[in-house]
Amino acid sequence: MRITVHDIARVANVSQATVSKVLNNYSGVKESTRKKVSEAIEELKFTPDSVARSMVTNKTNTLGLIVGDISNPFFAESAKIIIGKAQEQGYDVIISNTDHDDENLENAIQTLISKRVDGIIISSISRTSIRIKKLHDAGFPVVLYNSRVESDSSNSVVLDNYKGAVLAVDHLVELGHESIAFIAGPTKYLTTYERYAGYEAALKNRGLVLNKEHVYDGEYDYEKVYDFSYNLLSDPDRPTSFFATSDQMALAVMDAAASRNIKIPDELSVVGFDNMNISANQYIGLTTISQQKENMAELALKKLINLIVKKDPHPVSAELTLEPELIVRKTTSTPNKIILERRGYNGT
Amino acid sequence: MRITVHDIARVANVSQATVSKVLNNYSGVKESTRKKVSEAIEELKFTPDSVARSMVTNKTNTLGLIVGDISNPFFAESAKIIIGKAQEQGYDVIISNTDHDDENLENAIQTLISKRVDGIIISSISRTSIRIKKLHDAGFPVVLYNSRVESDSSNSVVLDNYKGAVLAVDHLVELGHESIAFIAGPTKYLTTYERYAGYEAALKNRGLVLNKEHVYDGEYDYEKVYDFSYNLLSDPDRPTSFFATSDQMALAVMDAAASRNIKIPDELSVVGFDNMNISANQYIGLTTISQQKENMAELALKKLINLIVKKDPHPVSAELTLEPELIVRKTTSTPNKIILERRGYNGT
Repeated sequence: MRITVHDIARVANVSQATVSKVLNNYSGVKESTRKKVSEAIEELKFTPDSVARSMVTNKTNTLGLIVGDISNPFFAESAKIIIGKAQEQGYDVIISNTDHDDENLENAIQTLISKRVDGIIISSISRTSIRIKKLHDAGFPVVLYNSRVESDSSNSVVLDNYKGAVLAVDHLVELGHESIAFIAGPTKYLTTYERYAGYEAALKNRGLVLNKEHVYDGEYDYEKVYDFSYNLLSDPDRPTSFFATSDQMALAVMDAAASRNIKIPDELSVVGFDNMNISANQYIGLTTISQQKENMAELALKKLINLIVKKDPHPVSAELTLEPELIVRKTTSTPNKIILERRGYNGT
Repeated sequence: MRITVHDIARVANVSQATVSKVLNNYSGVKESTRKKVSEAIEELKFTPDSVARSMVTNKTNTLGLIVGDISNPFFAESAKIIIGKAQEQGYDVIISNTDHDDENLENAIQTLISKRVDGIIISSISRTSIRIKKLHDAGFPVVLYNSRVESDSSNSVVLDNYKGAVLAVDHLVELGHESIAFIAGPTKYLTTYERYAGYEAALKNRGLVLNKEHVYDGEYDYEKVYDFSYNLLSDPDRPTSFFATSDQMALAVMDAAASRNIKIPDELSVVGFDNMNISANQYIGLTTISQQKENMAELALKKLINLIVKKDPHPVSAELTLEPELIVRKTTSTPNKIILERRGYNGT
């Protein structure tokens, strides 16, 4: 059985408010009362309980972090960074996972609020959600990490996703690719939506045609992306390159290519998006767009803590869009001449 | 400002216990009192708050999960499985990360208990810890996932780690390897300790000598394992194979090998331990020992929920040791003849 302030109040025969005052060393409590409470605490073997305490101080020094998919290393690595930085500032972090499901997200928000976290960092929220605006209006500190909603962009830390996609496409086009398949992911996310816009614009800019059959805009589901890529790669007129809006999905493409015995980068170039730790592993060496997760985590946390301590009630969104960076590794190269010739490009 | 039972009690001018009774539909509350409380709830726009509620029902339907390193995909994937299965049974899960630090672990336990979780699943706890026994004795439901302590093995779900290590070493020896470096990880964990014992015994059984300079028993730190491997691979008498007690550390070995331009498996064989999702990616194809994380997660969760609902006060540990399985992929092969000849083995 857990001992609460209520139990102590009962045993000491005082009000719960009095117990709270004693626990928090408030003045204005008679010495005899203080003694009764102390004895009750002793008797009940009460250990400081941050829930009971938070009912008085309204602060728990715990933050919530909600991620779309904890098994995606980008989210897990981001979580680790946020936890580390939060700890330095005296905050614990508890994590919830939504599996990219809107109902799970709502449950996660409610659970974390009921656990009395001081604020929440959310990644992966639908761009049409009005939940953030509501929380914000209610004065509850929330910051979006690598995510943005249309109704309230003021509490977001995001990359310039449009520009990131342009960088990726430009890199492939400059290598000589004219056929670039696209793993877009769900366009309910503003980040994904903007990357799609960047892909579209960059192709147009370069005079290339967007082939809808070469675009996957379903869920961030490894198996589904694997299947899409596996099928597309069976086509003799298959694309010479893939751009995926997540490193994990780029790995699904590489998995499918390996199972078709298609060599990367000789026969297929792949660009990801995120720069998760494993992408830098030289055995893998994935060319990708860095999301600057260290900076993004630091900014999101700083913004959240400022909101909690009320330093920053009306933040400016412009400061919080980070610059993407193309990191060229070994999964991209000029397209295979044999494949191009077979398709009648004749090396031009 | 968050509304608590205390606020409602104040507004309705009744005791907190009365508010609790109304919230939980207890009988024995006068209709006029029930009405006063309902009106106060209306007035304060009170939404059901599981903390306040838990003070009455003592149950929050939230579980805690503590992991050693959320950025290690094995833990992140395990977390995802546990969350999914818990959700099916009506439980939310909140996660804490310890960075393999004992003090962080203690903080995480305290934070989760103060958040009134109904029970905790812990992975990565020192084998000499007496914390589990204390929690168990205090009646708090705790189950260890992929972890075990010497003082209380009754609430653990683990693999037969000794046998897993023997399988890995036997596989390499049967391929012809006589020099097997070992990334052991910290021996404060019983799992790691047992894998070390398995490695030692398997070598002895095969008449091979354990070379202490080929063993890493430091922290599970990617950079450190990378450096250890990178240095060891500069040796002309370098080992022909590595066995790592975690897939993530096996990837660090592969990273180091790639940076030395050492081809896997032609010039170096690598075996991991965990079977994280990415290890099955055919572009990577890591030979590894499966920890059966689906089964392990299911059993750990079942055991925890049984403890919470008091169905299983004295579980039998024997049932909860899972069988390891060797999964051969493409990072292991017979040792390179040229290397062996250079070292004077002459193909024998």
